Amino acid sequence: MDIVILGAGNVAFHLANALHANGYHVKQVFSKTMTSAKQLADCVESDYTTDINAIDKQADLYIYALKDSILEDIIVQIDAPNAIHVHTAGSISIDVFDSNKTNFGVLYPLQTLSKTKPIDFKQVPLFVEANNQKTQDQLLNLACKLSFNTSLANSHQRMKLHLAAVFACNFSNYMYTVAAQLVNESDLSFDILKPLIQETAEKIKTIEPKFAQTGPAVRFDTNVMDKHLYLLQTHPELSEIYKILSKQIYANSIK
Amino acid sequence: MDIVILGAGNVAFHLANALHANGYHVKQVFSKTMTSAKQLADCVESDYTTDINAIDKQADLYIYALKDSILEDIIVQIDAPNAIHVHTAGSISIDVFDSNKTNFGVLYPLQTLSKTKPIDFKQVPLFVEANNQKTQDQLLNLACKLSFNTSLANSHQRMKLHLAAVFACNFSNYMYTVAAQLVNESDLSFDILKPLIQETAEKIKTIEPKFAQTGPAVRFDTNVMDKHLYLLQTHPELSEIYKILSKQIYANSIK
Repeated sequence: MDIVILGAGNVAFHLANALHANGYHVKQVFSKTMTSAKQLADCVESDYTTDINAIDKQADLYIYALKDSILEDIIVQIDAPNAIHVHTAGSISIDVFDSNKTNFGVLYPLQTLSKTKPIDFKQVPLFVEANNQKTQDQLLNLACKLSFNTSLANSHQRMKLHLAAVFACNFSNYMYTVAAQLVNESDLSFDILKPLIQETAEKIKTIEPKFAQTGPAVRFDTNVMDKHLYLLQTHPELSEIYKILSKQIYANSIK
Repeated sequence: MDIVILGAGNVAFHLANALHANGYHVKQVFSKTMTSAKQLADCVESDYTTDINAIDKQADLYIYALKDSILEDIIVQIDAPNAIHVHTAGSISIDVFDSNKTNFGVLYPLQTLSKTKPIDFKQVPLFVEANNQKTQDQLLNLACKLSFNTSLANSHQRMKLHLAAVFACNFSNYMYTVAAQLVNESDLSFDILKPLIQETAEKIKTIEPKFAQTGPAVRFDTNVMDKHLYLLQTHPELSEIYKILSKQIYANSIK
């Protein structure tokens, strides 16, 4: 199976490497950024191009791991009617291929991926959708070789998953960022918060997050909260976040 | 060294067990809740009481692991002038002991502790403060036996640490709670988000959280964000949180 990867960002990078590691033939990498295209092509021993007109038309699978905003524009320019075409986006419907392709689907990795951070791709949850049974079988077959954690999800479920992932990952990472800023302001190292962060993530493996909630907000301890808001006086935007999250944590606790 | 533990909540529970495991003699546990007092006393093979007047006056160390709101009220009722008195609260100044005690300090564990979740106490960061050098030496000596991760922090630093911990732990746990709610609404299991949550926490061991930020907000991808806000229409409070956090993540990314 010859594969063309369109994109050379974080998702393209990890997906292409996982394909290569599992013996799949990545034939070509396309990216408008020459250094990214070349870097990824070197990793997976493939050709690369920055010219959309030079994209190989004879591949069996085209994986569009591109920014949402340019996805549709690129899809319509690829003329390979017998191939399977898949995107990797959480919030784009499978319908994006409707007008232009015959066999298509989605391969969505629910994970935070950075090029600089190696990952065990076998543990990455992969969600598959396809427009016909045969394509679905082929994509499931592929996904199961890349990851032990593969399932089907339709476009609506996938979008809800993506939204949940924003809270679980992007927003919790932002909380780490704020915490780092606050300890740095006190000339303390962010390192001292790492055991707390690890344990908070560890806890929810065995305790539902709602029941793992600790801290002043869940107890509605206004004494502590007022002191914290006083410390945040010089950060009005953090103060606002502190208030709204504390209010919600408490509201959630007494439901 | 004979120790009295005042309180039988999460902090008291883990601290008393760590003391017991390291060969310290917990003489008595005090809690107004009989079942909690008895349960903890059984764990650490100590006596217990629910009567504040029955608290042993001959111990060497009194550890007040109580709710902030009742801490001062309990402290003034304990008459043991030759002992060391410490509290475990992040946001209470060491001065709370000033009017009433001679040797006193703070032993603050920076960790999320639940009775139902075992923890390796040796890894829990402990912060020590004391009102004189001798007491400081004694408390540091004790803390170093309980944990490999002991340091000094004054009351101001400790309060800032506590505030940072609210963001790093309580608020990120709330993000997990919201994520769980969202996947449950789609008849999906929270389990599928667990690898993402683990990896998000894992990443910041090696990448500063500010640089580990991914997702639609940091790219200011309004296409995706608008779809997410549409999905959150029936949850106005989550919609508000989504907007304010996305705004801040983006503002933070371009500084």
